[in-house]
Amino acid sequence: MEAFTFYNPTKIMFGKNQITHLGRQMRNGGIKKCILIAGQGSIRENGAYDQVIDSLEKAGIKHTEVWDVEVNPRLAKVREIIEQTKEYGAEAVLAVGGGSVIDTAKAVAAGVYLKDVWNAFVHKEIIKQALPVYTVLTISGSGSEMNGGAVITNIDTRQKWSVTSQHLYPRLSIIDPTLQKTLPFNQTANGAMDAISHILEFYFGNEKALSTLTINEALLRTIIDTTDLLQKEPHDYDARANFAWSTTLALNGLSGVGMRGGDWSCHGIDHALSALHPGISHGEGLAAILPAWIEYLSEKEPARFFRWAKCVWDEENVIRAVRRLRNKLEGWGLATSLRDLSIKPDELDQILDMIMVTPTIGGVFKLNEDEVRALLMLAY
Amino acid sequence: MEAFTFYNPTKIMFGKNQITHLGRQMRNGGIKKCILIAGQGSIRENGAYDQVIDSLEKAGIKHTEVWDVEVNPRLAKVREIIEQTKEYGAEAVLAVGGGSVIDTAKAVAAGVYLKDVWNAFVHKEIIKQALPVYTVLTISGSGSEMNGGAVITNIDTRQKWSVTSQHLYPRLSIIDPTLQKTLPFNQTANGAMDAISHILEFYFGNEKALSTLTINEALLRTIIDTTDLLQKEPHDYDARANFAWSTTLALNGLSGVGMRGGDWSCHGIDHALSALHPGISHGEGLAAILPAWIEYLSEKEPARFFRWAKCVWDEENVIRAVRRLRNKLEGWGLATSLRDLSIKPDELDQILDMIMVTPTIGGVFKLNEDEVRALLMLAY
Repeated sequence: MEAFTFYNPTKIMFGKNQITHLGRQMRNGGIKKCILIAGQGSIRENGAYDQVIDSLEKAGIKHTEVWDVEVNPRLAKVREIIEQTKEYGAEAVLAVGGGSVIDTAKAVAAGVYLKDVWNAFVHKEIIKQALPVYTVLTISGSGSEMNGGAVITNIDTRQKWSVTSQHLYPRLSIIDPTLQKTLPFNQTANGAMDAISHILEFYFGNEKALSTLTINEALLRTIIDTTDLLQKEPHDYDARANFAWSTTLALNGLSGVGMRGGDWSCHGIDHALSALHPGISHGEGLAAILPAWIEYLSEKEPARFFRWAKCVWDEENVIRAVRRLRNKLEGWGLATSLRDLSIKPDELDQILDMIMVTPTIGGVFKLNEDEVRALLMLAY
Repeated sequence: MEAFTFYNPTKIMFGKNQITHLGRQMRNGGIKKCILIAGQGSIRENGAYDQVIDSLEKAGIKHTEVWDVEVNPRLAKVREIIEQTKEYGAEAVLAVGGGSVIDTAKAVAAGVYLKDVWNAFVHKEIIKQALPVYTVLTISGSGSEMNGGAVITNIDTRQKWSVTSQHLYPRLSIIDPTLQKTLPFNQTANGAMDAISHILEFYFGNEKALSTLTINEALLRTIIDTTDLLQKEPHDYDARANFAWSTTLALNGLSGVGMRGGDWSCHGIDHALSALHPGISHGEGLAAILPAWIEYLSEKEPARFFRWAKCVWDEENVIRAVRRLRNKLEGWGLATSLRDLSIKPDELDQILDMIMVTPTIGGVFKLNEDEVRALLMLAY
């Protein structure tokens, strides 16, 4: 097992009606004025918005609102909100929504202290401080509610890049699973795919980290089983709660302990796909890439994949396990090929160029341009 | 799944040579002067002491030392160290050792701000602040390195009681598994028993918390498997590292998520045993009680124990799973009955009196005096 540092100071308040605590928690954290960031309006329907406003008002916390953060959140929007945040004098950023909203909030929280926030994403500037981030999670999957990472898309340069900082861990995240019971199933499936990929980006990193491997197998099985349950019965509270908590743990540090930082090829490829086609959600892109990635690599190094096949799918054969994974994703309504995502064959070269900003990609299995091309063909 | 709050701000630095970071970490935390607390001297032999002193000196941190904290740490010693801490003007408490040393350090850290530290244990006084606690772990098992709890024994009143506070989470814990390679196996076995019992105190609390159940099964299997490996090969670094990390996770909050606070009967009974016989280690007491506790309860509510039998021991039958557990503990050299711990039959009434300070014990399975007597007989 590799040496590691584990530090996750985010407080989680989980369960029904936990939003009632939000205002007092912010008040106790010294906040009197915040900017509330939201997406396309679903929080008005699921009840989150009314509960949040009620809790803020009861605690005497002033706020202003910014709406319309999109899936694959945009740099232009982040820049706009940074200006509003400064103008309003907000002392905290409150995200009410899913991963896109939370990532936007984190970029804003850091951005108010930076000359240009994009510099932090292209690694020209280090994040040394940020406004405190509070979140109310309404879609599980990204794990952003309990980590220090954010992914933002620069449409002009077609770059979907990420940043990580200890200053970006939310101070408090509220996870009320009942808010998710009205989600269309495809959003739950996207979230499941996202969380599964977070675990698998780490999982093959170190066969000696038994403690992390067994925990990750537990998380994978719980996510798969609860997604199946939610497909049949979206109102099953316990399935929703166990799903939500497992997806949080999938990217809060735990799943990566001793795993050499993970691989992240599939995320890199998906980021290129969705930078080119912002309509492709993160879960959709990953579903098209991840099974092909395992299939491609398992031909080269089959032994690395035996444990996953056995412990997650109860299969002795890796190819059969990949087939089980593909069938599962298709059963959830996810496309498992680039063709099914309506990518055109003549776009593959452009996608390849966008992926290969370094000579190889992948922290665990290093792939060069030829190998990534072969992988894209297999995923097509 | 029950509502819960998860908050664990302890930073963990894990792996070989991590002690070199200690001094700078303390310095960055604003500490210039600390009190170092240690046990019977094993840290001079395993190398921890020299590394700690070197790191403190390089960072220019002054310190004073207190030695001779015992297993089942004593209130009298805590009181003594509180006075020394005040006198020296220490700004932090640094524990170098196992759970007894860390628990002592926590009690000291809180005690400097209390009129009488024991008041916090008997719930007459709330801990509102504490000195920062830093730890260098040299024996895994208690989990104290990553939680806010401490257990102290008052010899005069024969009370072994615990306290929990968010102010008692260590600010930083360093876990270097190489320090444990020279431990006698019985100490590893005691630590394994302690961690297993932490998980099982929670495990039967809520059959709907699937995410926590599957993680706890993973932790149990890893602890059992790595203890077996360490019995054969104490120098196996990966076994030691996976063992260490799993025992930390067994009581850092993760294993109790959605579990209604757990049961804690076995800990309560063990605390009575070792308050009467301070020579009985925590792991030894638990090994004598825990299998009997499962056996006793599974006769009343067998269905509650099926999942444990199946998922941890691959057994359809609970009694066979209990037998497997007992055989495993005996294979590790642990006594699994009160008789084998040299408890005398005529002491059982006194032990029962010490246990039953409330009409029933157990947060999940409430046991009255008659039931606890029957359980003690079964454990005898």
